[in-house]
Amino acid sequence: MLAPLLALGLATGVAAAPAAADFERVVQANLPEFLELLAIPNVASEPADIRRNAAFLEVALERRGFSVQQLDNPARRPLVFAEMRSTRPDAKTVLFYIHFDGQPVVPEEWAQASPFVPVVKQRVGESWQVVPTARLQQLPLDPELRVFARAASDDKAPIVMVLNAIDLLRERGATPAQHIKLLLDSEEEMSSPSLAGVAERHSALLTADALVILDGPEHASGRPTVVFGNRGIAQATLTVYGPKAPLHSGHYGNYAPNPAIRLAQLLAGMKDEDGRVLVAGYYDGVRLDDSERAKLARTPDDEPALRKRIGIAQADRVGATYQEALQYPSLNVRGLASASVGAKAANVVPSEAVAELDFRTTPETDGAHLQDLVQAHIEKQGYHVTAGPPTDDERARYPRLASFVRGPVQRAVRTPDDAPLSRWAIAALSAPQVAAGVEPVRIRMMGGTLPTDVLVDALGLPFVMVCTVNADNNQHARDENMRLGNFVSGTRAIHALLTTPLD
Amino acid sequence: MLAPLLALGLATGVAAAPAAADFERVVQANLPEFLELLAIPNVASEPADIRRNAAFLEVALERRGFSVQQLDNPARRPLVFAEMRSTRPDAKTVLFYIHFDGQPVVPEEWAQASPFVPVVKQRVGESWQVVPTARLQQLPLDPELRVFARAASDDKAPIVMVLNAIDLLRERGATPAQHIKLLLDSEEEMSSPSLAGVAERHSALLTADALVILDGPEHASGRPTVVFGNRGIAQATLTVYGPKAPLHSGHYGNYAPNPAIRLAQLLAGMKDEDGRVLVAGYYDGVRLDDSERAKLARTPDDEPALRKRIGIAQADRVGATYQEALQYPSLNVRGLASASVGAKAANVVPSEAVAELDFRTTPETDGAHLQDLVQAHIEKQGYHVTAGPPTDDERARYPRLASFVRGPVQRAVRTPDDAPLSRWAIAALSAPQVAAGVEPVRIRMMGGTLPTDVLVDALGLPFVMVCTVNADNNQHARDENMRLGNFVSGTRAIHALLTTPLD
Repeated sequence: MLAPLLALGLATGVAAAPAAADFERVVQANLPEFLELLAIPNVASEPADIRRNAAFLEVALERRGFSVQQLDNPARRPLVFAEMRSTRPDAKTVLFYIHFDGQPVVPEEWAQASPFVPVVKQRVGESWQVVPTARLQQLPLDPELRVFARAASDDKAPIVMVLNAIDLLRERGATPAQHIKLLLDSEEEMSSPSLAGVAERHSALLTADALVILDGPEHASGRPTVVFGNRGIAQATLTVYGPKAPLHSGHYGNYAPNPAIRLAQLLAGMKDEDGRVLVAGYYDGVRLDDSERAKLARTPDDEPALRKRIGIAQADRVGATYQEALQYPSLNVRGLASASVGAKAANVVPSEAVAELDFRTTPETDGAHLQDLVQAHIEKQGYHVTAGPPTDDERARYPRLASFVRGPVQRAVRTPDDAPLSRWAIAALSAPQVAAGVEPVRIRMMGGTLPTDVLVDALGLPFVMVCTVNADNNQHARDENMRLGNFVSGTRAIHALLTTPLD
Repeated sequence: MLAPLLALGLATGVAAAPAAADFERVVQANLPEFLELLAIPNVASEPADIRRNAAFLEVALERRGFSVQQLDNPARRPLVFAEMRSTRPDAKTVLFYIHFDGQPVVPEEWAQASPFVPVVKQRVGESWQVVPTARLQQLPLDPELRVFARAASDDKAPIVMVLNAIDLLRERGATPAQHIKLLLDSEEEMSSPSLAGVAERHSALLTADALVILDGPEHASGRPTVVFGNRGIAQATLTVYGPKAPLHSGHYGNYAPNPAIRLAQLLAGMKDEDGRVLVAGYYDGVRLDDSERAKLARTPDDEPALRKRIGIAQADRVGATYQEALQYPSLNVRGLASASVGAKAANVVPSEAVAELDFRTTPETDGAHLQDLVQAHIEKQGYHVTAGPPTDDERARYPRLASFVRGPVQRAVRTPDDAPLSRWAIAALSAPQVAAGVEPVRIRMMGGTLPTDVLVDALGLPFVMVCTVNADNNQHARDENMRLGNFVSGTRAIHALLTTPLD
């Protein structure tokens, strides 16, 4: 499968570096392909959609000379693997991990017809105005235009940035500085349930010297960003049970215990007024010494601007700074429901109240352990905890009933910032073609989660993460978007990673 | 319009009382008409549906010799007024109030195709089994069959019970003991916004000596039930604001305050672990002396059975008994929402969290006053309270932001249990044809709310309420139902009210 690559002229070695205008041109040329990719729905709960994405990506990569194969999994949501060899005699192998699935959507919340019909917008004052898609065909590119769609930034854009960088190499007849392997995940937003199995079955295929993850937003300063670690995640669903069926709030109010109030009391006791977790033992093991704090303080966060952008007057006080806060595990209510609100609300004592929780973890605080601590906290408040809806017998015996259903756990991982791989990534992102004279932002541990634990455990690889998309991209939420300026700067960064030799 | 009534033979005076079998027969004969009525959707947010109900009722009442007219309101949800004169020389006039609108529905929660396609079921073990509708045509009626549909018990069944009682009078050529006026409300479940205006515009039409409300479940003991008062209600929507848009829970967890946690903390502080309201001043003015407590203790509540039926091991401890609990105002969370739960849940810090609240009031605790107290409580927790979503300026200035939107208020009303009207109702319900040798249950103040305040204020009438439907009817919730045995006993009770002279 590799012979065609050589025939395509990638074997001619070093060529002139691309000029600034070349990056814009290649981004512009590939934007229609990006829009086509965004138009394929990619929520992993629909395997047929995932297969359509995989087929599209296979074609796009093969056209650029990659050797491609789909790595299927039990849920028939195939991952995509692609490989391209360098002709450099002592070339190392770098495995790039990106994902093409997206977070679930609530289409009616979006300010456009569908999250899977991409729309181009520009900011006008405080609001976003739709502009014709044809504006994407005008050079020079307007860096402030944005493409709105699910997965625009998380995480389809980095895939297309790799295509851009390869196109730039190919048109100059240059070889990449290392052998390139791409692993495009299909289930990242559902915690990659099959990644460990796929990595095990295809361990020979995935052999490499280093792992580079392309995901996550760049630092808000707009500087090239490299990340040495990420928090893990664990989820749980907490349901508090009230009466067996919703009851008339007049005839039963003051008598039938209200599960929404009780859920509120349980949740309220889990955090203090400043957002610090009160569950016993939750922060145990996390320690930041002065040297770590000093490194964290070098991150050029503009916290007043950050608070203004997200619309809050005061942040939670888990850490002294934003970066410090991310070094601790979090306890987040990601959804809440009991009976109905709005026009459908009825005067009832609800029968149950549900809180969806996620716990972001650190290398010191394992997710399963945090789930244990939270369940112990619930039990300490006098609750009998069941695995699902209580039986009549349990209803008769226990005054307080809740179920606590655990979700999957992903481990946090952190690479030392002075490892060879870390130094290589810093060097590449410091190259003049990426950002003249600007030091990359180094993030000790980012707040979000990637399935680095599975890859690191299965492949025994050191890893770094390079972040390219705009910080205000609304990822995981409605109106996710990708800024064109970041498409260009991200392509520069990835091109540098492909052309700076890893020793 | 009254001449035809006389021609129909209602002027012939006293006739033999109906036999036990007559009640069953008339109920059975009118069940198809009941099912037709239930098949007309009746959520007041759809005025066209309300008009279809009104048209149906107009026909049904005219066919029985009532003089009928629709009393329209600004929302084009007409009420129905009907009148029938007694030929008794010294007859008083009794105004019966019933409502034909129903609570909002969430169709997918119902264990049947639609809340407006009535289904007949019987209990088999712990579950409900659908039986052919034709079973309603078999005599003797199976009292344990139930008709499932929205408004089956709340409050369309009492309308049909009146039709049944009139049919029994007419077939025996008897006159009612009092002039009958019927006022069928179209907006009760939305707190009857137009009732005061209608009562004012038609005050002459509605003139009467007493008001009898037919609504609400009978006592769980299955004994005839008369109620001398009802709690009022006030509503409010409490929204706590977090970041401007939902944020990635990894990148912002521990930094962006979570509005769901904050709403939980606000709600948790409103009630103690036993369900007693902690909002300062909430219970002020409510006092139960020993004589009142003794009367309340005579209500034959089987609280262990009640708790078993609703599926709780322990009740809230607002009062020492169920009846005592209802003499206090309540604070109920009737709905809760933040972001999404279940398959649509995403890993976000939500942008807002909403609680729908209802406050059941007593004559001592006015609804607007309770709204004031709750808002003051929220402000005391450090919240800046807005009338709606906060502006950017408010977001920048206030660390804690919530809106508190007040809903309409209905006053609680209570009639002394030794008033002449109260004694008449007790006498009628004690008649042998209703319940031989069984004393009716007397309820000082029921937990639910009826627009008695508007009627009592507008018409200056004393009132009592007579409750006939099964206590376990799921009113206001999914799977609302009406038990056939109650259709028969309710028809007996209403027949007694029409034939026992009010002095």
